[in-house]
Amino acid sequence: MSDHGDRSPAREFAALARGSTRLAVVGATGAVGREVLAILADLGVEGGRVRAFASSVDSGPTIRVGSLELPVVALPEDSGEIATALNDVDVVIGAADAVTAARVREPAERVGCVFVDNSSAFRLDPSVPLVVPEVNPEDLDGACTVASPNCSAILLATALEPLRRSFGIERVVVATYQAVSGAGFAAIAELERQSRAVLDGHPVRPSVFPELCAFNVFAHESEVDGDGHNVEERKIVEEIRRIWRAPDARIAPTCVRVPVRRAHSQAITVELGRPALEADVRAALTAGQGIEIVDDRDERRFPTPLRASGGDTVLVGRIRRAADARVEGGGGATRDFALFVCTDQLRKGAARNALQIAARLLAAR
Amino acid sequence: MSDHGDRSPAREFAALARGSTRLAVVGATGAVGREVLAILADLGVEGGRVRAFASSVDSGPTIRVGSLELPVVALPEDSGEIATALNDVDVVIGAADAVTAARVREPAERVGCVFVDNSSAFRLDPSVPLVVPEVNPEDLDGACTVASPNCSAILLATALEPLRRSFGIERVVVATYQAVSGAGFAAIAELERQSRAVLDGHPVRPSVFPELCAFNVFAHESEVDGDGHNVEERKIVEEIRRIWRAPDARIAPTCVRVPVRRAHSQAITVELGRPALEADVRAALTAGQGIEIVDDRDERRFPTPLRASGGDTVLVGRIRRAADARVEGGGGATRDFALFVCTDQLRKGAARNALQIAARLLAAR
Repeated sequence: MSDHGDRSPAREFAALARGSTRLAVVGATGAVGREVLAILADLGVEGGRVRAFASSVDSGPTIRVGSLELPVVALPEDSGEIATALNDVDVVIGAADAVTAARVREPAERVGCVFVDNSSAFRLDPSVPLVVPEVNPEDLDGACTVASPNCSAILLATALEPLRRSFGIERVVVATYQAVSGAGFAAIAELERQSRAVLDGHPVRPSVFPELCAFNVFAHESEVDGDGHNVEERKIVEEIRRIWRAPDARIAPTCVRVPVRRAHSQAITVELGRPALEADVRAALTAGQGIEIVDDRDERRFPTPLRASGGDTVLVGRIRRAADARVEGGGGATRDFALFVCTDQLRKGAARNALQIAARLLAAR
Repeated sequence: MSDHGDRSPAREFAALARGSTRLAVVGATGAVGREVLAILADLGVEGGRVRAFASSVDSGPTIRVGSLELPVVALPEDSGEIATALNDVDVVIGAADAVTAARVREPAERVGCVFVDNSSAFRLDPSVPLVVPEVNPEDLDGACTVASPNCSAILLATALEPLRRSFGIERVVVATYQAVSGAGFAAIAELERQSRAVLDGHPVRPSVFPELCAFNVFAHESEVDGDGHNVEERKIVEEIRRIWRAPDARIAPTCVRVPVRRAHSQAITVELGRPALEADVRAALTAGQGIEIVDDRDERRFPTPLRASGGDTVLVGRIRRAADARVEGGGGATRDFALFVCTDQLRKGAARNALQIAARLLAAR
């Protein structure tokens, strides 16, 4: 398993599990919001300590996730009313869009909340740390508002961190295999509806995505800039550079959707800063935080999105010297390695990462 | 469209369409064999000129593909009987396994047939050319038996050829998104059966593949060697090196199955031999043989396996400088580019490539 030393799940989230901690989830009815509630329910947090906010459209009588059944309240429009609503709250988890996140920040900070946001609102804002706790926890120091990175950036940063620490990283080429649920519940429903239609020989028409998602793969649906990169690829590059404090880090991503319901996968080809043996790379990854090695060559058992779904770790496998590795040192040492990695992007890629951040901020208070 | 100059489909296959040409397909009932027959039917080849062989298990009264309805005959076990069966045949297309291919070669050559084989039997045999007609047609010279490469190698070689000719290639990093039909009809049936079961909430168990293929992605199912590379990845490296006559060519592949019925996709990151402008790379690809550009950034219309399915070209899109391109020349020239490409691996990736070879060999006689 992936949790090491004092990073056992119970210990890691102790500050959230405390009976005195009060939490709010903004965007509680969305795919990430529900996952936040599921993790809180698993931690034994009682419903009386959690407030669920949604847009007025999605607010309704209650939401039920695991043992938690909570009234869903519309997030107020007015900043003062938001502050009042958050007055006795310690932690706000943002699981809504960037516009909503921007509305929440000021009142949350005013009433002294920790605000951890999953949207893109603050990820490149120099006044807000962008944190993967396994990678740059030091950036949390003294922060009130913290941004949780894009799901693909979290996966890549977590998987590569043991290699970055041990060997340095010169270049990363990554191709993604992204689940549709990155685009929310509607996307999962579209995948299922389209799959049935295709199997039954009925005509299908895309709605959530620009392309058919059933039995197809397609370039990530985000906008494409004049240089041909889509927004998801830009996020990976810019966010990883910020997390690594390495503005010139070489990262070349290609982001692709695949007909998978949840959990993202990545084929990573990496050039290390110095030559290493495969055994050393494997040892570093095995000792890495938040990582579970799934790499059985004989049984051909490697990371898959199904294996990662619902789990909290980054599965790492197919650890190997790249097929064209240039041997530089004794015993076959090289800088050129390849990996295949998966994680549930609603868990470690979003909800879990945000709650890890929140727990650390609370514990440090 | 992709066909240039005298490479129009009718012209390209003229030698096969001739009324005097007699053909045999070994493995006619498999996924590739049927596609061979479909192309012959589209060319207007009459049934009386085509002989369909299958294993004794798959032989049956007849096979019907398009306008062709043919008796399916069991391939004889004995070499002499195979020679007799092929006596009046000009071209044999091998669409069976490597063991069957090895049985066919000697009798086919003895009776003077052109034998183009899709299996792996001869791909690394120095006495047999390995050919993608858009790339190394010169290697066909005087050959009787020719091997058609692995589908992933054909896709990669065809897509990269315009760049190799214009700029040279230093390194290729490629991640594949491979359709299940590369593993035959049973794999398509398994994908459909599993997809229905998952949608209906029924339990599923893999049979053709080691992993569930519905709503999942997984490392290519071929055997994994002691260095961690699977056979599909090895084939790409070894076959491309042979096709390019470049035994040291740097190619780093990761081969992955996706829940797509047919057509393979590849995310390619390439380092050219010399810096180029994006406009020059685009112009080279646009002028390339067998290539159709699908690259509309505003409409986000790029290659997809659904768009490639049933077609004969390699779709090339997302042509861009890599996100981490090092600018080396004036106007933003660089060696670092990225592409996303798709082709129907049963057509250009197998049947069509073999028939292109056969037509050229016949025309040269």
